[in-house]
Amino acid sequence: MSRTALREFLRPPEPRSEIYDLAADYPDRGGRSLRASLCISSARAFGASQEEAINSAVALELLHNAFLVHDDIEDGSEERRGRPTMHLLHGVPIAVNVGDALAVLSLRPLIANRAKLGSRLTLRILEEAERMARESVEGQAIELAWRRHNAVDLQDADYLRMILKKTCWYTTIYPCRVGALIGTRDRVDLDRHMRFGFFLGAAFQIQDDLLNLVGDHARYGKEIGGDVWEGKRTLMIIRLLQQASPEERIELRRVLGLERERRTHDDVRWIRERLDAHGCIEYARQVAHGLAGAALHEFQSAYADLPDSRDKRFLKALVPWVIERA
Amino acid sequence: MSRTALREFLRPPEPRSEIYDLAADYPDRGGRSLRASLCISSARAFGASQEEAINSAVALELLHNAFLVHDDIEDGSEERRGRPTMHLLHGVPIAVNVGDALAVLSLRPLIANRAKLGSRLTLRILEEAERMARESVEGQAIELAWRRHNAVDLQDADYLRMILKKTCWYTTIYPCRVGALIGTRDRVDLDRHMRFGFFLGAAFQIQDDLLNLVGDHARYGKEIGGDVWEGKRTLMIIRLLQQASPEERIELRRVLGLERERRTHDDVRWIRERLDAHGCIEYARQVAHGLAGAALHEFQSAYADLPDSRDKRFLKALVPWVIERA
Repeated sequence: MSRTALREFLRPPEPRSEIYDLAADYPDRGGRSLRASLCISSARAFGASQEEAINSAVALELLHNAFLVHDDIEDGSEERRGRPTMHLLHGVPIAVNVGDALAVLSLRPLIANRAKLGSRLTLRILEEAERMARESVEGQAIELAWRRHNAVDLQDADYLRMILKKTCWYTTIYPCRVGALIGTRDRVDLDRHMRFGFFLGAAFQIQDDLLNLVGDHARYGKEIGGDVWEGKRTLMIIRLLQQASPEERIELRRVLGLERERRTHDDVRWIRERLDAHGCIEYARQVAHGLAGAALHEFQSAYADLPDSRDKRFLKALVPWVIERA
Repeated sequence: MSRTALREFLRPPEPRSEIYDLAADYPDRGGRSLRASLCISSARAFGASQEEAINSAVALELLHNAFLVHDDIEDGSEERRGRPTMHLLHGVPIAVNVGDALAVLSLRPLIANRAKLGSRLTLRILEEAERMARESVEGQAIELAWRRHNAVDLQDADYLRMILKKTCWYTTIYPCRVGALIGTRDRVDLDRHMRFGFFLGAAFQIQDDLLNLVGDHARYGKEIGGDVWEGKRTLMIIRLLQQASPEERIELRRVLGLERERRTHDDVRWIRERLDAHGCIEYARQVAHGLAGAALHEFQSAYADLPDSRDKRFLKALVPWVIERA
């Protein structure tokens, strides 16, 4: 996606307000624009032009950045794309408002769709966007409740349901659905795009959690091991809770229940060792591979009727990429 | 506004998600529904039915509650409508997400407008809502920056510009504009409703700040003097900064620059005394009265062409109410 299009919607309507400099900070730090690319490719694979999809793609990137600013507060994260997080730089009050500003800004390109797509399709996209945002806050709520109540009896299915909502809806399901909506002018069964998006997004999230544990800091842009410091219930931690001995489980429950500031380096090192000892990292890699295989299978069904195109091939190539990226 | 209508949009689409109980907490604590009443009355004064305006009114109340949850975090407030604030009850991470959830929920009734009002008018209302939300975050950003940078050289005009954005747009200007939009099917000059809404909303905000200083706790529902504890730049504080002696100004700058937790009872008591000594409370009362007078004047112009009705009389009666309420 062109940075120019994103920048256009970040330009201050109120030149004296410093909020727009702050709102542009995370987007300016770069990022892959995965969601925007997916939205545009899906639209083009269904026969639309880039022009017809660009506003929806821009809106999604703005909302993604809104989520990142609020997630960083909620998770107590310290680093984002290689720099300190918004709330570390400017305090929690301003960071809450910057996230709100980015979310509000994401409405403008969605409303601006009207000029190219007409009122009816514009409202259909807004309807999809409302559902996507709702699924995302529901998913976030599940994860926050797990930490707040120190949940330790979690199954893989709980984790998959949580990331279906928290990650997959806005990262993969919605971009595919909206692309198809624009490309077909609302003449396709969008539910076919639920499964492909879910499997792709779930593999993506597990790989993201793996990179947080074993990735290269310079390329990942976040503190390595941050999820363990934050007490996040990743698939690896859930596997560890299942595999741990009774004594280990007691210790795990204690460490996971601490406030982030009260966890020690020894606590984190111990969890890291136990993850290795119980093969939790290898287990998560296998699950991610299985999900990627399922995504490839669903790809054939969801996009089978479409003629071959660069965009169709790009969508397919995303599947191995999400689990192989470093 | 009927509580039933509000409740309908707070009903969980995802029954297992606890986020909807939390989202219903602030709305369940009561409140005057001033913004919803204003929206519906304005619509009816322009000839619409309550049915045609109810979704827009509900959306506004949901967004208002979203703002309250995030404002309480940003201001470090301890009490809201007679109970502890969301972040005191559930922690900042969950409270940030609950505010996001309420904001997302506010989109649904706005999109549901389509069934009664058609696609074109639905999008026009969304356009107004986007501007209103944008003005609100800009206003919030100004106020947060004043506290973050310990601003002490502020004029009355700075304050009025800040509350134009932070308070008036969503409390009074937008409800009047959207009511007129619905009632006339987008056939009226909405800018006529800017000035009435601004004067009414500004008088409302100043009275709100006065009640925070001198109100009755049981009826006000927030800690009395909370604004002073939070270091808010109210009109009274700005007046005090202007009227203070050089020695007082130095002390004021010191106290206003402290973190909330570091302010002492003596600090707050001293500011409270200085506000009385320099007649700042009386000054703010006079400004609020002047603004109410201007609002009455603008009322004649904005609503002059409309036939007499209960709703028209209600709108006019709001003007004295905002400055006389306790």
